[in-house]
Amino acid sequence: MKPVKVGLLGLGTVGTGVVRIVEGHQEDLSSQVGSPVVIERIAVKNSGKTRSVAVDQGKLTEDPWDVIRDPEIDVIVEVMGGIDETKSYILEALERGKHIVTANKDLMALHGAEILAKAQEKQCDVFYEASVAGGIPIIRTLIEGFSSDRILKIMGIVNGTTNYILSKMSQEGASYEDVLEEAQKLGYAEADPTSDVEGLDAARKMAILGTLGFRSNIELKDVSVRGISQVTKEDITYAKRLGYEMKLLGIADRQDDHFSISVQPTMVRKGHPIAAVNGVFNAVYVYGEAVGETMFYGAGAGEMPTATSVVADLMAVIKNLRLGVNGLKAIVPYKPKKLKTDEQISYKNFILLHVDDKAGVLAKITQVFAEFGVSLESVVQQPNEHNPEAEIIIVTHQANKASMDKVLQHFEGLDVIRRIKSVYRVEG
Amino acid sequence: MKPVKVGLLGLGTVGTGVVRIVEGHQEDLSSQVGSPVVIERIAVKNSGKTRSVAVDQGKLTEDPWDVIRDPEIDVIVEVMGGIDETKSYILEALERGKHIVTANKDLMALHGAEILAKAQEKQCDVFYEASVAGGIPIIRTLIEGFSSDRILKIMGIVNGTTNYILSKMSQEGASYEDVLEEAQKLGYAEADPTSDVEGLDAARKMAILGTLGFRSNIELKDVSVRGISQVTKEDITYAKRLGYEMKLLGIADRQDDHFSISVQPTMVRKGHPIAAVNGVFNAVYVYGEAVGETMFYGAGAGEMPTATSVVADLMAVIKNLRLGVNGLKAIVPYKPKKLKTDEQISYKNFILLHVDDKAGVLAKITQVFAEFGVSLESVVQQPNEHNPEAEIIIVTHQANKASMDKVLQHFEGLDVIRRIKSVYRVEG
Repeated sequence: MKPVKVGLLGLGTVGTGVVRIVEGHQEDLSSQVGSPVVIERIAVKNSGKTRSVAVDQGKLTEDPWDVIRDPEIDVIVEVMGGIDETKSYILEALERGKHIVTANKDLMALHGAEILAKAQEKQCDVFYEASVAGGIPIIRTLIEGFSSDRILKIMGIVNGTTNYILSKMSQEGASYEDVLEEAQKLGYAEADPTSDVEGLDAARKMAILGTLGFRSNIELKDVSVRGISQVTKEDITYAKRLGYEMKLLGIADRQDDHFSISVQPTMVRKGHPIAAVNGVFNAVYVYGEAVGETMFYGAGAGEMPTATSVVADLMAVIKNLRLGVNGLKAIVPYKPKKLKTDEQISYKNFILLHVDDKAGVLAKITQVFAEFGVSLESVVQQPNEHNPEAEIIIVTHQANKASMDKVLQHFEGLDVIRRIKSVYRVEG
Repeated sequence: MKPVKVGLLGLGTVGTGVVRIVEGHQEDLSSQVGSPVVIERIAVKNSGKTRSVAVDQGKLTEDPWDVIRDPEIDVIVEVMGGIDETKSYILEALERGKHIVTANKDLMALHGAEILAKAQEKQCDVFYEASVAGGIPIIRTLIEGFSSDRILKIMGIVNGTTNYILSKMSQEGASYEDVLEEAQKLGYAEADPTSDVEGLDAARKMAILGTLGFRSNIELKDVSVRGISQVTKEDITYAKRLGYEMKLLGIADRQDDHFSISVQPTMVRKGHPIAAVNGVFNAVYVYGEAVGETMFYGAGAGEMPTATSVVADLMAVIKNLRLGVNGLKAIVPYKPKKLKTDEQISYKNFILLHVDDKAGVLAKITQVFAEFGVSLESVVQQPNEHNPEAEIIIVTHQANKASMDKVLQHFEGLDVIRRIKSVYRVEG
C-alpha cells in the first residue's frame, strides 16, 4: 500500500522523539497499519541548527505553511507549541482535509471545542493523547475504557515540575525557593516557572480531562486555580505529622450532574495510591460509579514518553484512514455544563492558625465553626516554638466551600487570631 | 436508529452487573452510540431463581442455543464461564455473524487464537477487556495506547485472591493456611482454591497479556508457573527485613525478540510502584522502550468493575457496527514466537539455606556460586533460633536460570547444607 505521509510541525524535544520512534520502530508500525509511515516535511525554527537526530535537510522548512499546504501530506503532527498562530495552522490543515495529532495542551484547553467542531465538519481526526500526562494513555482510557461508566471523580498529578518540587520538599525538608532553584538547574523547571508553579499548566490539563470525563464542555475559566508558591516547609512538616503528603492535585468531581474543577495544593492521606507518586512522575486517579478506584501512572513529560503517545495517536489516525472512518468517532460533549455553587462544593480542610496564647481562645474559634455549621475532625492546640503565641491546627469534616469561606472571613475580624497561617484542601 | 440487541450468556455476578449498567446508564450509553442498547435474551442455569436485579422473566432461557440462534441478536455477551461448551457457542455465534464480548480468560488463554481467526474470517469483533484485571482497561492500553512502543516487560498482579492472601500475611504476620481460610469465609477464595493459589489463573492472564504486549502468539503452555501455597510467614518476614514485599507476579519479558513468561511468588523491592498494591486490587506494570515505567491499577474482579469493562467493550462493538468496521481492527500476532532458553532468562534470586553451624561452610557455598558464574549481591549468615544450625541468606545479582538451576542441584548433594529452605525471584 502507498506510504502515509506525515508533516511534522516542530522538531524540539517531542518532535525529535517522534522522528526517533517513527524511524526506529518502522517495521513494527508498518506491520500494524500495512504501509510505511513517512515523515515527509518538517517545519523548524532554524533549519541550520545541529540536531541530535539525523534528518534529511531537504525535508526541513522554516515556514509551517509549506507543510500545511503540501498536498501530499495526510496527517499533521503538531509539536511546536504556541496558541494563536498554531491554531491558524491547525484550522487550515483541517480545512484541507488533513488529520491532526497534537501534544498541545494550551491549544486544546483554550480552543479544543472550536478545533474539534471544525474536524467534525471536515470528517477529520484530531487526537491529543500527549497533551495530558505525557506517556500515560489517559485520554483513550477516559473515552473508551470507561465509556460504560459514570465518572464521579478525577484527581490528577498532571504537572511534573510541581510534583518534583513538593516531593523534594517533603523528602528533604527543604524550602520551596531552594528546591525551585535546583529544579531550574536540572531543567525540571523553566526559567520563568509561573505557568507550572501557579497551577496554570495543571488547570489546562484538568479542563481537558474534565471535558472527557464528564462529557461536558469544561473550559479553562471553569477551573479554580491555586499554585504551590505559598507552600512552606512548615506546611509540609504539619502535613506529614498528620499522615498526609502535600500534592498539587487537579480535582474534577461531579455530583448529580453538577461539576467542579480545581487545582490546588492538597494534603493527601498516606495510603491513598496518589500520595505515593513522587518526583517528575504523573498519575491520574479515576473513581467511577461502577469501576470504583483506578489509577494510571507514568512519565508525564520527556522526549520519548510524550512521543510514544503522539505516535500512538498517529497510528490510530492511519488505522482510521485504512478503514475510511476518520472523524466519525469523535466524542462530542453532550452533557449541559452545570457548575457546582460554593454551597455544593464540599471537602475537608486543614487550617493552621496563630493565636493569642490565653484562656478561652479555642472556645471562641470552635464557636465560629459551629455557627457556620462546619464540624471538626480534629483540633490540636500547641505552643509555637518561636513566639508568645499558640498554634491551632484544625482538620474539618467535609464542609461546603461557602461556609468555610464565611468561617475564614469571620476569623479575619477576630482579635484573638493573629494570622491565618495556612488553609489546604484535604483528600483521601 | 433501531436498537442494538444483545444476547447475554450467564446472569451470575458479572452478568448481573452488566444488566445493572446497561439499564442504569442507558441514557449515557445511547447518547454515545445513537440508539438504545437492549438486552434481548439471557441464558441462565436456572430460570426460576430469585435474583438481585429485576429482569423480564420472558427474556430468560435455560438453553444458550436459544440466544445464539436468535436472528435478532447482534452481539453476544458471554459471562457464563466454562471452556469447551462455551467455545462451541462462541464459534457458532461468530459463524452467524454475531459479535462477541467475553470476560472469559480461560477460554481466551486456551482458544483465543482459534476464536480470533474465526472472527477475522467472519469480519466480527471479539473483545475481551474484562478477561484480565477486571476493571482496568489494560488490553486497550496494550493494543492502542502503546501501539507505537516496544514493550520490554510486563509485571502483573493479576489475581486478587493471592494478593489478598500475601498482603494479609505481610500485614499481620499470619500463616498461609489461616489467611486462606479467612479468605474463603469472606468469599475472596473459592472452596477449591487451586486455580488461584497455584498460579494457573494468573498464568492464563499472562498468556493473554504476553500475546498482546509482544504481538506474538503466547500460549498457556509457554508460561512457567509456581503458586503461593509453599510461601511461609518466615519467608515474608525475611522479605520485609531485606526491604521487599512478597507478591505473586506474572512477568513477561523480552530481549532481542526472545520472550519469557512466568508466574511466581516474587520479592519486590519496596518503593517499586507494584510493591504497594495490596488486598484484592490488581495492577499491571508496563515498561516500554520509549515510554519507560507505567502502571495501571484498579479492581481486578467484582460485579461492577468487571461489568464496566464488559459494557465498554459492548460500546466499542456498537460504535464499530455504526461505522461498518467490525472485525477490521483485529490485532493479529505477527511476531514469530521465540522463547528464551534457560541461558537467556536472567534475574536476581533470594535463597535461604539451613546449614551446619561450623567453620568453612560459607566458603564451600560461595565456591559453588563462583563455579557456575553466579555473583552475589549480599550474603548473611546467622544462627537459627530453633536449631543447632545456621541460616544463610543470599541475594544474587542477575543470574541466568540455567546456572542457578545448576547451583541448586549442586547444593542438593552438598553435605553441609541440611536443606534449601526457600528460593524466590527478586525484582525492582
